[in-house]
Amino acid sequence: MSEKKYAIGIDFGTESARTVLVALEDGQEVATAVFPYPDGVIDEVLPGSKVRLEPDWALQNPVDYVSAVKVTIPQVLKESGVSPQDVIGLGIDFTACTMLPTKADGTPLCALPEYAQHPHAWVKLWKHHAAQPEANQINQLAQERGEPWLARYGGKISSEWFFPKALQILHEDPEIYEAADRLIEAADWIVWQLTGVETRNLCTAGYKAIWDKRSGFPSPDFFAALHPRMRNIVREKMKEEVSPLGARAGGLTPEMAAATGLREGTPVAVANVDAHVSVPAATVVEPGRMVMIMGTSTCHMVLGEEQKLVPGMCGVVEDGIIPGFFGFEAGQSCVGDHFAWFVENAVPGAYEEEARRRGLNLHQLLEEKAAALKPGESGLLALDWWNGNRSILVDVDLTGLLLGATLATKPEEIYRALIEATAYGTRIIIETFEESGVAVNELVAAGGLPERNKLLMQIYADVTGREIKVVGTSQAGALGSAMHGAVAAGPALGGYRDIREAAAKMAHLKDVVYRPIPEHKRVYDQLYAEYVTLHDYFGRGANDVMKRLKRLRAEVLAQS
Amino acid sequence: MSEKKYAIGIDFGTESARTVLVALEDGQEVATAVFPYPDGVIDEVLPGSKVRLEPDWALQNPVDYVSAVKVTIPQVLKESGVSPQDVIGLGIDFTACTMLPTKADGTPLCALPEYAQHPHAWVKLWKHHAAQPEANQINQLAQERGEPWLARYGGKISSEWFFPKALQILHEDPEIYEAADRLIEAADWIVWQLTGVETRNLCTAGYKAIWDKRSGFPSPDFFAALHPRMRNIVREKMKEEVSPLGARAGGLTPEMAAATGLREGTPVAVANVDAHVSVPAATVVEPGRMVMIMGTSTCHMVLGEEQKLVPGMCGVVEDGIIPGFFGFEAGQSCVGDHFAWFVENAVPGAYEEEARRRGLNLHQLLEEKAAALKPGESGLLALDWWNGNRSILVDVDLTGLLLGATLATKPEEIYRALIEATAYGTRIIIETFEESGVAVNELVAAGGLPERNKLLMQIYADVTGREIKVVGTSQAGALGSAMHGAVAAGPALGGYRDIREAAAKMAHLKDVVYRPIPEHKRVYDQLYAEYVTLHDYFGRGANDVMKRLKRLRAEVLAQS
Repeated sequence: MSEKKYAIGIDFGTESARTVLVALEDGQEVATAVFPYPDGVIDEVLPGSKVRLEPDWALQNPVDYVSAVKVTIPQVLKESGVSPQDVIGLGIDFTACTMLPTKADGTPLCALPEYAQHPHAWVKLWKHHAAQPEANQINQLAQERGEPWLARYGGKISSEWFFPKALQILHEDPEIYEAADRLIEAADWIVWQLTGVETRNLCTAGYKAIWDKRSGFPSPDFFAALHPRMRNIVREKMKEEVSPLGARAGGLTPEMAAATGLREGTPVAVANVDAHVSVPAATVVEPGRMVMIMGTSTCHMVLGEEQKLVPGMCGVVEDGIIPGFFGFEAGQSCVGDHFAWFVENAVPGAYEEEARRRGLNLHQLLEEKAAALKPGESGLLALDWWNGNRSILVDVDLTGLLLGATLATKPEEIYRALIEATAYGTRIIIETFEESGVAVNELVAAGGLPERNKLLMQIYADVTGREIKVVGTSQAGALGSAMHGAVAAGPALGGYRDIREAAAKMAHLKDVVYRPIPEHKRVYDQLYAEYVTLHDYFGRGANDVMKRLKRLRAEVLAQS
Repeated sequence: MSEKKYAIGIDFGTESARTVLVALEDGQEVATAVFPYPDGVIDEVLPGSKVRLEPDWALQNPVDYVSAVKVTIPQVLKESGVSPQDVIGLGIDFTACTMLPTKADGTPLCALPEYAQHPHAWVKLWKHHAAQPEANQINQLAQERGEPWLARYGGKISSEWFFPKALQILHEDPEIYEAADRLIEAADWIVWQLTGVETRNLCTAGYKAIWDKRSGFPSPDFFAALHPRMRNIVREKMKEEVSPLGARAGGLTPEMAAATGLREGTPVAVANVDAHVSVPAATVVEPGRMVMIMGTSTCHMVLGEEQKLVPGMCGVVEDGIIPGFFGFEAGQSCVGDHFAWFVENAVPGAYEEEARRRGLNLHQLLEEKAAALKPGESGLLALDWWNGNRSILVDVDLTGLLLGATLATKPEEIYRALIEATAYGTRIIIETFEESGVAVNELVAAGGLPERNKLLMQIYADVTGREIKVVGTSQAGALGSAMHGAVAAGPALGGYRDIREAAAKMAHLKDVVYRPIPEHKRVYDQLYAEYVTLHDYFGRGANDVMKRLKRLRAEVLAQS
């Protein structure tokens, strides 16, 4: 048996799965493999049929997840030359809530010929948004009944979460609801396929299925009030026992060992969520340091010693990110998407021409031009609500605003104003946490944006007045999963005692630190005060013009 | 002597003069000539020198005006084949306030070698904006003293007007101020050159030099409080007598007759202003019908029976447009400029490509795409303040706002929202007039925009709820001047008794009428209510964020 030990992490994303093989001693990513799902995101027609989907649907095929395991693990083993004997653990993370109905043995209903034509038999992807009526119903009932758990989720359950999706199945296809012995997170389902053991991970249970360590799931009375058939959904269709993060779900089955080339019995960790598993991969295992996962949207995560009810947060879950702490999650629904919209819809041909000539993409050109501006120079201010507001207002009906334009306003000034707006949005989240008693002293950035846009990072530092560090890996999810695999293996097999120990060894930051520039901070403090005034005026009911415009739009379109 | 009689009108614009020869019986424009000023707009270096101008300066060379007369009149005579015997009158209109210092005989100071190097010796064009400190001083003093005339100008004298420009000369080059026997409108100066008679026309006196039929110019005490040397500016440097519009200033001098080919003694009308002279050319000689001259900005003019103080109007002058009525003027400072800014700065290359492929310009393409949208469909709302707000807020420090954007917002939706914003701006002007007792029952559109953009005209009809007619000529200024030439000639020479009679014969509308579409009007009423709420919130002091951003911008740039 050689000295060096390894773990494998698999990050199941929206379009593909990404697998890394990582050295335990230093977190070095020795090999990587990516597997695009053959059926991808299913939002038009069910595979192998002519069944068309309605708007806002987004499904997946669970076969693709298994294929990802069987394809990528042999690839990383081969690429690295590492012996399966030295791979001591395996962890996975998943998008969430991504859920499916199965039989008692784990067979997905969509894999059975009699149900394959039923859209509700398939995996509902996190961004399946067709359960909004069910989410509304849940929220209204919870408010009426004064359900205590509602406050843990910023006062609103999202249509993306578990019970709205389950209720949609019951409403629209009761046959499938009845046929389902299990309604399960895809994260837990793939662990079940790997180990033969059904578990329910604490992270999705807490953040997506309204579970709490102290009070459990919502009561049967609540579910019965939603729908009589739903009273015993937890007992009947879900694994009631919730497993902590880093625990060992089981060992690799003989069949999976044969298919992947790993040893039978290789420890597999309880499942996790992509964003949450990135926190220890960003070196964060203690309170006070907020991880921002910045992509098309931004997810903010921070740990605390006590449960605090923070206005507009997405959720707080005890042990939900790192055991021993309350894990707080907040979010901005439009960040990278914001800039992508601008580049596609509002940048003149002359800029495209210049970018082409100079071998840049438009983002790079705009970043360069915007970086030449001083804070406050454009005279512009924006509200970052092009896709509604998640935290702290939790209102999808808010829309974007740009103020201060003149005949001299240039595209790069607007681009910068949009970046600044997302930075103000992050600052208001940070300040709301701090006002609620959750400290945020430092920021750690992960995701695609921090690597691509240095101007953005500096603006975030200047606006928030906090140092920003950057995660050392571009695949924080898969690394975090591998770390959990090492914890599931435990010290006896050469792994780690807990996620703190794993993070100390395996997680790293880049050398770069973005520090607030005091002169910039002074200007941004003034601009932020203006942002807050507009945020509150348009976001807290003084002038609901954005909602009235949306309603008018819907009326006008309905008359077509 | 043949039957048909003609008049000539010359419209002195910013870059060129335009001359038309018009048939009196029906207003037919028989011949047209355009003369671009050789020295154009002088805003960098004085002609024939190395003297550089400061920012915001805009001068002209008066020699160019005389050249325009001598070049274009022979051209229209030749082109038309009309005998000079049948040209019974001549009228001119000019940009205003465009003014210059001269000797007692009318010689411009800039034409004298001893003053040619003095910037202040030259013609100050209407858009010379360097007298803002002087305008501020005048406004402050007038407020302190409670000068009754201030309310006739919406509470603010513009830096473009006569006395700020005169005071700037006195402040910055007292030698020129002393040397000037006359400070005169270029409009009156060119009539002086044509006739040898110095007059001061009522239109510029009233709208640009704070003159009123009943109370005259501001008092010597007021001027003395501005500057001791200025106490007797009216008596010392201006023609005190003000001549009514349509009156005969004099007859063509022998020298000018020889140079132009017209008869010596041909009646020349008192001067007029380009926008104001367009009103009768738009068939409007009575109250209730508002003329909108729509180009880069929009000028709104309407007649009334009584003097009313309308908030935020540019001015009200008795007999200032049509003798016998009070002439009201209001304005929007950013209309065509608004759309031009958008097209230059915010339309993606793919649209440019499509326009090129289809042989359209970008405005045409955007108009076509925007026309496919229904009112309210975009969910967008804008404030048309990209260049501040003239009427009704009279505030240059306001800036543009766009609200309601989402990730699905398209360029044509923003384009349409900008058009709609200018229409709301016109509606608020109309409603302010009506609330002040000045009726506006119908709109007549002149200028470049109405011909180019039918969608815009329909939106204006839908938003204002009023029929819009369109002026029959694209050179309303020159036609209006020719009409005034016919009035100056009078019935004895085959001309007209007054401008009403001239308008009845010579002015025409196009066949097209834009009528409000009731379904559109209903939606726009809702959107307009939202516009007014935002207009008042940002424009009347509830949230002065636009001004604070402008101030911050100036501070930031000053630190560079």
